Amino acid sequence: MKKKDLISITDYSKEDYLRILELAADFEKNPNQRLLEGKVVASLFFEPSTRTRLSFETAINRLGGRIIGFSDAGSSSVSKGETLHDTTRMVSNYVDLIVMRHPLEGSSRYAAEVADVPVINAGDGANQHPTQTLLDMYSILKTQGTLDNINIFMIGDLKYGRTVHSLLMAMSQFENPIFNFIAPDELAMPEEYKLFLKEKGIRYFEHTEINENINHADIIYMTRVQKERFMDPIEYEKVKNVYILRNNMLANTKPNMRILHPLPRVNEIHPDVDSNEKAYYFEQARNGVYTRQAIIAHILNLK
Amino acid sequence: MKKKDLISITDYSKEDYLRILELAADFEKNPNQRLLEGKVVASLFFEPSTRTRLSFETAINRLGGRIIGFSDAGSSSVSKGETLHDTTRMVSNYVDLIVMRHPLEGSSRYAAEVADVPVINAGDGANQHPTQTLLDMYSILKTQGTLDNINIFMIGDLKYGRTVHSLLMAMSQFENPIFNFIAPDELAMPEEYKLFLKEKGIRYFEHTEINENINHADIIYMTRVQKERFMDPIEYEKVKNVYILRNNMLANTKPNMRILHPLPRVNEIHPDVDSNEKAYYFEQARNGVYTRQAIIAHILNLK
Amino acid sequence: MKKKDLISITDYSKEDYLRILELAADFEKNPNQRLLEGKVVASLFFEPSTRTRLSFETAINRLGGRIIGFSDAGSSSVSKGETLHDTTRMVSNYVDLIVMRHPLEGSSRYAAEVADVPVINAGDGANQHPTQTLLDMYSILKTQGTLDNINIFMIGDLKYGRTVHSLLMAMSQFENPIFNFIAPDELAMPEEYKLFLKEKGIRYFEHTEINENINHADIIYMTRVQKERFMDPIEYEKVKNVYILRNNMLANTKPNMRILHPLPRVNEIHPDVDSNEKAYYFEQARNGVYTRQAIIAHILNLK
Repeated sequence: MKKKDLISITDYSKEDYLRILELAADFEKNPNQRLLEGKVVASLFFEPSTRTRLSFETAINRLGGRIIGFSDAGSSSVSKGETLHDTTRMVSNYVDLIVMRHPLEGSSRYAAEVADVPVINAGDGANQHPTQTLLDMYSILKTQGTLDNINIFMIGDLKYGRTVHSLLMAMSQFENPIFNFIAPDELAMPEEYKLFLKEKGIRYFEHTEINENINHADIIYMTRVQKERFMDPIEYEKVKNVYILRNNMLANTKPNMRILHPLPRVNEIHPDVDSNEKAYYFEQARNGVYTRQAIIAHILNLK
Repeated sequence: MKKKDLISITDYSKEDYLRILELAADFEKNPNQRLLEGKVVASLFFEPSTRTRLSFETAINRLGGRIIGFSDAGSSSVSKGETLHDTTRMVSNYVDLIVMRHPLEGSSRYAAEVADVPVINAGDGANQHPTQTLLDMYSILKTQGTLDNINIFMIGDLKYGRTVHSLLMAMSQFENPIFNFIAPDELAMPEEYKLFLKEKGIRYFEHTEINENINHADIIYMTRVQKERFMDPIEYEKVKNVYILRNNMLANTKPNMRILHPLPRVNEIHPDVDSNEKAYYFEQARNGVYTRQAIIAHILNLK
Repeated sequence: MKKKDLISITDYSKEDYLRILELAADFEKNPNQRLLEGKVVASLFFEPSTRTRLSFETAINRLGGRIIGFSDAGSSSVSKGETLHDTTRMVSNYVDLIVMRHPLEGSSRYAAEVADVPVINAGDGANQHPTQTLLDMYSILKTQGTLDNINIFMIGDLKYGRTVHSLLMAMSQFENPIFNFIAPDELAMPEEYKLFLKEKGIRYFEHTEINENINHADIIYMTRVQKERFMDPIEYEKVKNVYILRNNMLANTKPNMRILHPLPRVNEIHPDVDSNEKAYYFEQARNGVYTRQAIIAHILNLK
């Protein structure tokens, strides 16, 4: 039987998504299920990522699995010049599953080809972060009761933000989504994604500032506008305070609307939003544990 | 029910202390009690501290719990500019208990307010390190048979040493303690603590060198004199060799006297003391495991 | 009863080797044996070594043990000036077994003297790495069916390579080995080891390049030629491409011949060798887990 990996969100079908989301709901009800008893998982973080790593390691521990690995490349053999090929082959000999974060695009796909055991991509550079997308979908499903007919506002860096690209691809598989993109011109949603939506006949709208349009949103998905993305620092200074969500902007938003953010945030959501019941980003982080338990169970055929 | 935290040694009553010390004695008899089965503990060390971290992680493992976390801020989201508020909220969503070491004073109290789960302060800058104080008390109780009528000599850096301040506060709750402070003028016990003792009618004496006075001691509590505490390096050079405890100074000390040190030591206790039966600092470190098991059990109501 | 340590390969007798290799075969058949249940092992890596560390930690986890420790000295108390003596005494109070990697020769022996619990040397500078030798022996036994009458070619850095020195010492205890050394003059096998072989009446041959002689080999043991070993960079440039094993050199080697390498490799084995069935270095790495389980079981008398 061919091993399952999770490298790109587009590797999975709508049925896979729904199966994983169903499992996630089951783990949320009962997080401590010792399905990984006697199994060892490698957690290979070639670059630091506290949230993703701790979320995965919580998921593995609550499943009764054991963890080996590293949290940055400094304490790995990479510093001795070992190739990704050799590191992957070596670790693949030790464990039952590899979770990998690596700064290079395509590194996860390559590791999955080399390894004898399943590989889960925990982020490969600007490319893919599919477990984030699945936890985003779980958060939408949980708060909206459905993945159909969702009006999603994506705000901030829509050019480099891999999370918004993957979420766009995934949500396009469901009925009648509407996308609204709010970004500075320099960080607008790339043409290829807009073309993809056009070809599927999915509606989308573009805006350059946060205004009363958000009153139509079911989901507001905030992302960070990072200074280092701008060629010209003056351009950054111009826009840095424009894409900040504040509590007073939310007065007339829909009752079912929820605000998501992949975190960490810097200042793009003002702290005064945190106490608004529509702020959902910390619960979203918690959903990451259940979703990752579900992904592991799905990949290793544990349930 | 309000969650319990352990942030400052003064948060706890004499009854709490005694309850924890009783539990510690029980864990010393039987360290492997799987009371944390199915639970995950976050070990968040925003600055390195091998001893405290390994002691806590041993305690958690012997209780059957699982651990996630980091051993320095470098591999945390802090490097992406995330606030302590957000890191704490995020981790609080994953785990059943947070153990936190942070360089900023007050950080633990703040984290405890933000987190939904209990927080144990494993040291917040120069402020508090309450689990150290409890293991110090356990060591005193174990070696002296009582916490009443103890004559404690505190030697070294009494100005910045948080362990001596906390121990002073805690021991002042018991009957008839006597304190002796031996420190250079630059590192003398601060006025506020002496005032506190005066108001409680507790006797204390001050000295500027180690001499035959220590023959009255039940406990000698050594601390490190750190170079970086001195404005003027010449002042440091003057005193650095004065506050070194040597075996030949111990000849006439009381048979029940024991030497404590929070460790790590640099040179303030000469290695020739190590083989003296009055040297107790390594046993003291071992007591840290049992005491931390007791603190965790107390906070999570496991016993 | 005196505690057992594993510091140098020469501490152990031929009977010890055979007992450990027998246990390793048992663990290979059934790697998940919870013999370390309720035990805590310290994994103290004062310098990074992914392979050795992950292999040990996999072994401990598959035995049901728990792990505390650090993966580099940066997050240890060493940065506060603590001596190896004090760190070892402290950790020895927490755990049931210490696995230690340290850059200084002799550090493991010293730690074993200080610690109350057994110490396994996971590499002490250029000195010893005995668990590597045992996994090398297990790999030879598994692929050759015997440890007697083995013709071993050692290639690369035979001067500084501790793994080849230890393997030479260990294999010399078995019947009728033949050693072939292929190295540049600057990195030739030291006189002391050749003298040792002479005194035991063991045959050895020296070569300065890889040629058809390897067709007699049962085992080819490759090692890395490290630039930093050369005084004169020009000498390194001269030899760096000479000691590279390529697939086309293997056409006439014996059917039972297998290629070992302690890993990580840089370029001394060309990737085109990887798919040759005589390439055994990744399986060898896997054997490391079973061998280390066996060593732990032997040292703690678990089987």
